[in-house]
Amino acid sequence: MSTFSVFVLFFSRISWISNIIVVVSPENIETMKSIIEKYGHKRVMIVKGGITRHRSIFNGLKVFVENEFSNHLLQKPEVVIIHDAVRPFVEEDILSKVVMAAKEHGAAGAIRPLVSTVIASAADGCLDHSLERARYRASEMPQAFLFDIIYEAYQQCTDCDLDYGTECLHLALKYCKTNAKLVEGTADLWKVTYKRDLYAAESIIKDNLSQQVCVITDMKEAVAQIGFLLHESLKSQVKVEAISISLSRNDSHLENIFSGQCYNFVCINDKKYAIQETQQLVDMLEKSNLPLLYPVVLISMHLDISEDISFSIGMEELTRIKKFAGEMKKKNILVYGLLIQYKDHLVLQETVNSAAALIMALIKDRNPELIGQLLVA
Amino acid sequence: MSTFSVFVLFFSRISWISNIIVVVSPENIETMKSIIEKYGHKRVMIVKGGITRHRSIFNGLKVFVENEFSNHLLQKPEVVIIHDAVRPFVEEDILSKVVMAAKEHGAAGAIRPLVSTVIASAADGCLDHSLERARYRASEMPQAFLFDIIYEAYQQCTDCDLDYGTECLHLALKYCKTNAKLVEGTADLWKVTYKRDLYAAESIIKDNLSQQVCVITDMKEAVAQIGFLLHESLKSQVKVEAISISLSRNDSHLENIFSGQCYNFVCINDKKYAIQETQQLVDMLEKSNLPLLYPVVLISMHLDISEDISFSIGMEELTRIKKFAGEMKKKNILVYGLLIQYKDHLVLQETVNSAAALIMALIKDRNPELIGQLLVA
Repeated sequence: MSTFSVFVLFFSRISWISNIIVVVSPENIETMKSIIEKYGHKRVMIVKGGITRHRSIFNGLKVFVENEFSNHLLQKPEVVIIHDAVRPFVEEDILSKVVMAAKEHGAAGAIRPLVSTVIASAADGCLDHSLERARYRASEMPQAFLFDIIYEAYQQCTDCDLDYGTECLHLALKYCKTNAKLVEGTADLWKVTYKRDLYAAESIIKDNLSQQVCVITDMKEAVAQIGFLLHESLKSQVKVEAISISLSRNDSHLENIFSGQCYNFVCINDKKYAIQETQQLVDMLEKSNLPLLYPVVLISMHLDISEDISFSIGMEELTRIKKFAGEMKKKNILVYGLLIQYKDHLVLQETVNSAAALIMALIKDRNPELIGQLLVA
Repeated sequence: MSTFSVFVLFFSRISWISNIIVVVSPENIETMKSIIEKYGHKRVMIVKGGITRHRSIFNGLKVFVENEFSNHLLQKPEVVIIHDAVRPFVEEDILSKVVMAAKEHGAAGAIRPLVSTVIASAADGCLDHSLERARYRASEMPQAFLFDIIYEAYQQCTDCDLDYGTECLHLALKYCKTNAKLVEGTADLWKVTYKRDLYAAESIIKDNLSQQVCVITDMKEAVAQIGFLLHESLKSQVKVEAISISLSRNDSHLENIFSGQCYNFVCINDKKYAIQETQQLVDMLEKSNLPLLYPVVLISMHLDISEDISFSIGMEELTRIKKFAGEMKKKNILVYGLLIQYKDHLVLQETVNSAAALIMALIKDRNPELIGQLLVA
């Protein structure tokens, strides 16, 4: 169901989409309702799915024509986009391309080159013939249609079409003589089908979430210096926002960063385990609603400015960080500790580079099992 | 190139395969040679690839007939298997299926259901017609052929076939009137094509490597008890081999585990940072050649049996673990530290469960940036 919520959020951010109809199987309607409520989505209507793909899509279209599903009819759109929840990485660009093409041609759909040769088998399970790969394409989603065309096509469908068919472009051609315009899509439109696709989707989401990091320091000299060096070390790998603030003030810069979809924060402070200061950032994060959809990574970086080589970490303190991280996890914030020793300048650069490597590893993995651990740079 | 080495290892383990011909592009021949030397592969010959897929395959087949590539001709086989390096998760079962089918029918290939509808586009970029998805299949690899059939087919190929064709089954049909038997393959046969496929492949490999863990303890009571509890906690998630040994003896049980392709080891000891004991395991691992192909995870688990609540970890010791882990990384062994406090029995079970969760996270991620860190359960 979480794919649905990512989608709904995505579509509801596109201003030129007037209504979002989410078609879900009957047993998931309540979950979906609570998701939409939780995220405060607007312009979203939930419709009960049918037993096949075509029957579900037809139900979604009926919302604009029949009174069966809602008390007040939604205004009939000029164009409808049809999309699959199993293709979570759609982009606005391809949506507007299929919509423009549908306005002109009546129907349009995204296509991709074939990855494998397509063959026809004979009745005995042997090769009958193979298709010339260059002449064919894979039909993907999204597809867009003039509403009147696709609704007309679904109305004329036989039960056989509705039960065994899968391709909307085919229906528009068969029943409305509309040859859909084919639009080259990007590789991201692939269909999450197998377990390996879930692995790939997880990695892509983690990749997207680790594009940007915000480094927060206070005004103290040692902290600011580390912040500067860390910024330099990180910026070759990731977009870095650096903020020097007193967190107790309500900082509008930080709020801009929240709304800019930054999901990673490094707080540098010279108190060994300044959970209190981190708590203030957590409060601001919670107010921002940022952790609702994806986990936010918060790395609490502690500066040890003692020159003492026999410096040691107490078990009690470690336990305290773990407990704090456990509480934060319930808010979908992953807290990790990172200790850095403030030494002479030559060694310091090396230590900061090592800290940057650990920060990137934590951000990219977003491993919930490692929260509350104190790593040493 | 590492895919190649995984393959060569895989194929060379199958006893009924007599020769392995690796066709590589000219610029990669030297690298491939050094890989084959490094891993000590037998029955492997390297052949220079052509500028297209078909020309490369043809070069591979010529090894058995023409003297161009080697001083002594290899014995011509009855059946050849053709496979792609971009499909790294092939299994012995499908190989033997296509070979058996090729013996009977002259040619055979793995197929998979189509994931998307296949369509033909007209000259104007609009839909011409869509294919009925159920009637078609995606042609995948491996494929197998009677040698005489596929060699004959390649000899008759036109330059146009060799330059623009991709499908071997098609050649066998066109030039030798051989209708290949189609064999249903598993989802694992997919072609690593896009960046997302690399992500998926990496996750699958990590998944495969984290199926089994070996827990090593000595005879001391506290250590043995933790070992037992850890075994109980891990075994619901992973196959666990438990060994109680003195590592200084040459233990054949441990060697069996190495040869059983176990890539994860947890060493429990009651000395705080018993790098010495870990070193002995490392020596045995190196002798086993296990870390040649994939990184081995070695978790050095330290038992703190002091009842002292103010127990602390010194920075000097932390630095020592990091240095040791840095050395081990060069041998492709990823060393992580894990500290567990030995408390009364009730709390102990909980601590061990937390250690098990950390162990699973470390094994599944195999993150090289986190080596040498001391985690606390």
